[in-house]
Amino acid sequence: MGVFTKDIKTFDDLFLHQLRDIYYAEKQIVKKLPGMIEKATNRDLTTGLKDHLEQTKGHVERLEQVFKKLGKEAKAVDCPAIDGILKEADETSGEIEDKEVLDAAIIAAAQAVEHYEITKYGTLIAWAHALGHDSLVTQLAATLKEEGAADKKLTTIAESKNVNRKAAS
Amino acid sequence: MGVFTKDIKTFDDLFLHQLRDIYYAEKQIVKKLPGMIEKATNRDLTTGLKDHLEQTKGHVERLEQVFKKLGKEAKAVDCPAIDGILKEADETSGEIEDKEVLDAAIIAAAQAVEHYEITKYGTLIAWAHALGHDSLVTQLAATLKEEGAADKKLTTIAESKNVNRKAAS
Repeated sequence: MGVFTKDIKTFDDLFLHQLRDIYYAEKQIVKKLPGMIEKATNRDLTTGLKDHLEQTKGHVERLEQVFKKLGKEAKAVDCPAIDGILKEADETSGEIEDKEVLDAAIIAAAQAVEHYEITKYGTLIAWAHALGHDSLVTQLAATLKEEGAADKKLTTIAESKNVNRKAAS
Repeated sequence: MGVFTKDIKTFDDLFLHQLRDIYYAEKQIVKKLPGMIEKATNRDLTTGLKDHLEQTKGHVERLEQVFKKLGKEAKAVDCPAIDGILKEADETSGEIEDKEVLDAAIIAAAQAVEHYEITKYGTLIAWAHALGHDSLVTQLAATLKEEGAADKKLTTIAESKNVNRKAAS
């Protein structure tokens, strides 16, 4: 990014910037999820996070298809938002010894990641429509659907699998 | 937070930590929203953000009531997640000259803020129930409802008020 020039000149530039931002985010999530899985104790939670790690690798590939369709390089740009969300997850979990409390914190952190992705893919889909990139919407919407489902599954694990109740006991 | 000790020992500690985290986040949003309002051009967008700034001041007060009910000090703890989300908003908008493209970027950034708050208040409400802090739920749920409505309003502005279409033209 330039310091003296404005690098985002058009809406297409902004769309590409947002794609590169979420590409960076997905790749960081692939790097950080194994650490969260290792810290988790609840079996439904570890299974859910492992499944989501595989899905996330698929999201990276889908984005690479989107870049290809656009005729642009699949390049990541720094995304301070996901860095902050993941840093907070690390810092908070580093303060917790009790395994059941830690599970509750991991779910909250993973849901913050999901919500970041949900808002970004929602924006990308709206922008793809506005820009006439309708052919990209299928891939972006498929990932958005999986992020939404992952978020709901985490809520189910927290509530039905009694993670929160165990943490409170 | 301690480096050698684990400061979050119980689920109640984690709940309090999360409250202090969102308290910091709300206060940062009160500081940063005026800058976003100043950069925005679309009249519906500036009005929507101004209304949300007033609401956000109310969210800070509601959290202070929650701390009071808990008998705890209304103290903020650093929240790297909101810092990252707001830093990204600043950096991206600093790269954009075109006013209509900038409006689209501001909406996306504001929606990322809303989604962070939606996930955090959702977690706080679930934890308040699990911990038997039912008397806190009314305040937390009132804010969650307003965050959700603010997010939907931003989508309406982007789509019905043609921000995205103007940015693409």
